[in-house]
Amino acid sequence: MRQFIVLGHDAPTTPDFSLDDLAGGAGRLDVLCRCVNSAFFLSHDIREDVRVHLVLGDEVTIRFEGSELRRLNPDERSTAALIRGALEAKDEAIGHMEAEGSPGVYLSKRGFEPVLEETTREGTVVQLHEEGDPIVDVEPPENPVFVLSDHHDFEAEEAEMLGEAADQRVRLGPELLHADHAITVAHNYLDTEGFTSY
Amino acid sequence: MRQFIVLGHDAPTTPDFSLDDLAGGAGRLDVLCRCVNSAFFLSHDIREDVRVHLVLGDEVTIRFEGSELRRLNPDERSTAALIRGALEAKDEAIGHMEAEGSPGVYLSKRGFEPVLEETTREGTVVQLHEEGDPIVDVEPPENPVFVLSDHHDFEAEEAEMLGEAADQRVRLGPELLHADHAITVAHNYLDTEGFTSY
Repeated sequence: MRQFIVLGHDAPTTPDFSLDDLAGGAGRLDVLCRCVNSAFFLSHDIREDVRVHLVLGDEVTIRFEGSELRRLNPDERSTAALIRGALEAKDEAIGHMEAEGSPGVYLSKRGFEPVLEETTREGTVVQLHEEGDPIVDVEPPENPVFVLSDHHDFEAEEAEMLGEAADQRVRLGPELLHADHAITVAHNYLDTEGFTSY
Repeated sequence: MRQFIVLGHDAPTTPDFSLDDLAGGAGRLDVLCRCVNSAFFLSHDIREDVRVHLVLGDEVTIRFEGSELRRLNPDERSTAALIRGALEAKDEAIGHMEAEGSPGVYLSKRGFEPVLEETTREGTVVQLHEEGDPIVDVEPPENPVFVLSDHHDFEAEEAEMLGEAADQRVRLGPELLHADHAITVAHNYLDTEGFTSY
């Protein structure tokens, strides 16, 4: 399983936002929607063995489960509608119990730390870092967990938690990429392991 | 210069579409907007040495010029607004004369064939193809031109033109990708040439 945790620092934690203003009033939810797109979509297919955790304002986490998704479409607006639907079910999430907004889309009242802890138990955290080793030189783990930030850098505390949890530190290329593009490149790297002999 | 031609088979050729329904009434303009995003955006930067041609309905072509873009934002909606702005200036485009919709966004009344011919004179057409050579095994050309299709496959005539114009036939990986993801992977491949010794 490939997992992606994406931190949305300005993202809404309640459903009272407009789908017409994702890049403004909805706290750059457009960024997170594109990350969901990059994580799941193949041409005419969905990557079932993928899980995405969108951490909204370090308060609420929306989990997208590839094997269960039924209503995901590639455009930002419809993905934002799924997030809004999950936020509408927020009251049903109690403690570690998740609420289900739509098939394969779950909400829990958890911030970054517990989500990172949980994924660390199941997978290998790969930190994307400017000073990391070029990803092409690194043997990919079987169950990688990539942690990304929205349009903001990681906050100091987040960077510290991530640094401690990380088993590997890699760089995707010489250019610094948007989070959604980084997900696409990471997938390609994992897809193409051994591809030269394909 | 890196160039991307993207064919939008259902895309609108007039500005009378709603920004609230890009994936529906606007003929999957969301796909083309994501391609523009992938082609130009770096983290906190724009790739200036990139040109994108969106061919709408084989009738109208919108050219995005990286070095001149001023109002491009990453979200689909605002990119669609730039396309709509260019379509509003359509009457000013006469013959091969382009109209300018906003800084760096131009419209011409041309379909795929003349656009492909023009780019072929300036660059090397790299065809993305299921049976192509793995891209990691291929020496990238200096001025590559990638031709992609929206959510539809190339039509027979388009595929034939592309096959004739192509100097190289490559495959990005074992999975078939959406056009915008293919652009991201192609950029990463070009960016990372020699990156292991970076």
